[in-house]
Amino acid sequence: MAKVFLPKGARDLMPAMMNRRLLVIETVREVFARYGFEPLETPAFERIETLTGKYGDEGEKLMFRILKRGKGGQAGEVDLALRYDLTVPLARVMAMNPGVQLPFKRSQIQPVWRAERPQKGRLREFYQCDVDTIGTDSPIADAECIAVVHDALTALGLTEFTIRLNHRQILRALAEAIGAGEQETSMLQAIDKLDKIGKDGVEKELIERGFSNQQVSELWQYLDGKTIPGTSEFEAQLRVILDIALDLGVDPDRVKIDRTLARGLDYYTGPVFETVLDGGYSGSISGGGRYDGLIGMFSGKGDVPAVGVSLGIERIFMLMEEMGLMPTTMTSTQVWATVFSSDTRSSTLEAAAVLRQAGIRVQVSTREGKLGKQFKEASTRGVPFAMVCGPDEAAAGTVVLKNLATGEQFSGTAEQVAIEIGN
Amino acid sequence: MAKVFLPKGARDLMPAMMNRRLLVIETVREVFARYGFEPLETPAFERIETLTGKYGDEGEKLMFRILKRGKGGQAGEVDLALRYDLTVPLARVMAMNPGVQLPFKRSQIQPVWRAERPQKGRLREFYQCDVDTIGTDSPIADAECIAVVHDALTALGLTEFTIRLNHRQILRALAEAIGAGEQETSMLQAIDKLDKIGKDGVEKELIERGFSNQQVSELWQYLDGKTIPGTSEFEAQLRVILDIALDLGVDPDRVKIDRTLARGLDYYTGPVFETVLDGGYSGSISGGGRYDGLIGMFSGKGDVPAVGVSLGIERIFMLMEEMGLMPTTMTSTQVWATVFSSDTRSSTLEAAAVLRQAGIRVQVSTREGKLGKQFKEASTRGVPFAMVCGPDEAAAGTVVLKNLATGEQFSGTAEQVAIEIGN
Repeated sequence: MAKVFLPKGARDLMPAMMNRRLLVIETVREVFARYGFEPLETPAFERIETLTGKYGDEGEKLMFRILKRGKGGQAGEVDLALRYDLTVPLARVMAMNPGVQLPFKRSQIQPVWRAERPQKGRLREFYQCDVDTIGTDSPIADAECIAVVHDALTALGLTEFTIRLNHRQILRALAEAIGAGEQETSMLQAIDKLDKIGKDGVEKELIERGFSNQQVSELWQYLDGKTIPGTSEFEAQLRVILDIALDLGVDPDRVKIDRTLARGLDYYTGPVFETVLDGGYSGSISGGGRYDGLIGMFSGKGDVPAVGVSLGIERIFMLMEEMGLMPTTMTSTQVWATVFSSDTRSSTLEAAAVLRQAGIRVQVSTREGKLGKQFKEASTRGVPFAMVCGPDEAAAGTVVLKNLATGEQFSGTAEQVAIEIGN
Repeated sequence: MAKVFLPKGARDLMPAMMNRRLLVIETVREVFARYGFEPLETPAFERIETLTGKYGDEGEKLMFRILKRGKGGQAGEVDLALRYDLTVPLARVMAMNPGVQLPFKRSQIQPVWRAERPQKGRLREFYQCDVDTIGTDSPIADAECIAVVHDALTALGLTEFTIRLNHRQILRALAEAIGAGEQETSMLQAIDKLDKIGKDGVEKELIERGFSNQQVSELWQYLDGKTIPGTSEFEAQLRVILDIALDLGVDPDRVKIDRTLARGLDYYTGPVFETVLDGGYSGSISGGGRYDGLIGMFSGKGDVPAVGVSLGIERIFMLMEEMGLMPTTMTSTQVWATVFSSDTRSSTLEAAAVLRQAGIRVQVSTREGKLGKQFKEASTRGVPFAMVCGPDEAAAGTVVLKNLATGEQFSGTAEQVAIEIGN
């Protein structure tokens, strides 16, 4: 017997899972659209030159490279690779469409591919879900990143979260304030672990990284609220963004300025934001910020103002499952149309057609005969209702609708049954 | 200045296009779900062993092969390839999930990749849109393939089409009836061109392919309706399928049995169907049939009953554009919220939030100042309404809604404006 496997780190999204994911994606897409973020899709692969040099050594190792077709490929030549994120493709789109109206606001919900180690349970194909606003430095654009995340999570029922807000330039000033301007990255890497390893852990790590006791002590004073020299402009920016976010309807209890948020080591140039679920869930479910240096990389036009946020959609799917926020239905089919016999099949099919016209999802049994067996099949599949059309019903122009959980029955025309299901 | 390109045969789907495509996909997905076809997604790549040997020499050449990561890849070793269709992945899913309830009905709307020659305008990444029913030989499953196509095209406004229905075994019997059992494939390849080159063209081609004048003459008699020996069983099957399709609500004017439909040279084993648009549009917009040999290929269980149909979704997008069936709006944004000045920004943003709560799509201008300029920007982007909140409105708690096409204005609270837009 032939054996067949999935590639490592890949998965099939079976119907029960897909139905739930589509609901989440539709909800998120609708929230995005309400803010003027409109959908973009880019190809799965990009030219290798477009992707190389963008992700650092580690990232490059994780790229899936595609052989040239024909002779070049036989010689091992590569011309394409699967996209690793949605930001480099966006930069390419902006470079190739210089006439596009700015600000350009786009959402993009598509898979990306990374050859992560599957033994760690990491997926090699997973969806990313980004919105970005290109071409404006208005703080409205930054605040909208906070507002869409707020609205999307709220719409999904994930209501207990905190959006943390900080500024890349404040972090830089912080490093300088403790005399560690050169060790900024190292400092940020340590601070970034605060959630995971706590204050003591971060202190220990900073000492190990060569920071002095005095530096560490000063650092905590600044993180606790002491004014960091040279940051008044950036603090003011954050307050404006926060004010706008509140005007946009963001719940003031769900967002806060937080100097310990160390997101974005190289990438971000201005405000940064990150969302964590309250209640001890570790890790972020969304993150973003202003990154003015990246979008212009292909156009040669220098910095292009850009701000965006990414919803950790795979993590959100998983958490919603864990938290019972996903529908538990195995199927979206509402009615199992049993087929009593060949003689009544026509009437059954016609009734099914009436229900479908009314927007109801009906699967017709491909097995005729014993109704008990057909009811059982429907129940096993998680279909809530069965429809029966025996000789008496066929003669009377009616059908019987049976609620498979309660056993309740309703008899009427197909039109009446459609209304009954709608109630 | 750096230059950057798309890979050959790839394209970006910009927002205006994506909005239209998503509408079509949602419509189609809803029709599929009403028949119990539920969504499946499989990974972009499969193990190379899963894909090789499935598409013939020509197909293999067109596959995108992925280098192994690390040393193997440096040596030119390949372990994965991008999927070429959605059927081989389905066969893999069935083999890997032997416990799945049969019949298994799935829809799948995902891109596939083929290294077609881009100079012919062929896409190398394009969406396929398939439904299949696995595990039953009930004619209901065959008829549902016809019915979903009928309902999907009707829902999309493509109401003038003909679904043609034939049977692989009738075509085989036809070849035998004219003494060309060995030349069946050659005969079908000629007949398949009937739409394109007409009866005379096909006759000429048959002669060139070595068929005798007598064979050609007999062939036309059979195609014109003369009973083909040994086909009564298959003719009866087609009539049952047709009857069921009509019971399911298929318009009798939109479907016909057609002996000249020569679809499916190796793949199909039973009924086959194809849809063409009426009115001189060449080429099919959907095709499918029963293919009992393919799904079992990985499970080693021999033939597994399977029937499915593919909507030519890329072609449908294109035709709908051509025929004016797509919305012509450049954007899904409904309201452009102008920002009169910093002083009234809060009121504007709060009004925008009220509209969004009501489900309206609002983009806030990131430029303040001259309203005329802001109106012009909204019009250029194709946004139908602008909202204004100047000092008077801010003081009164109202906003003005301006219809940018007619110049009509409506003044009221944000809640009243939301209702006005809904009307």
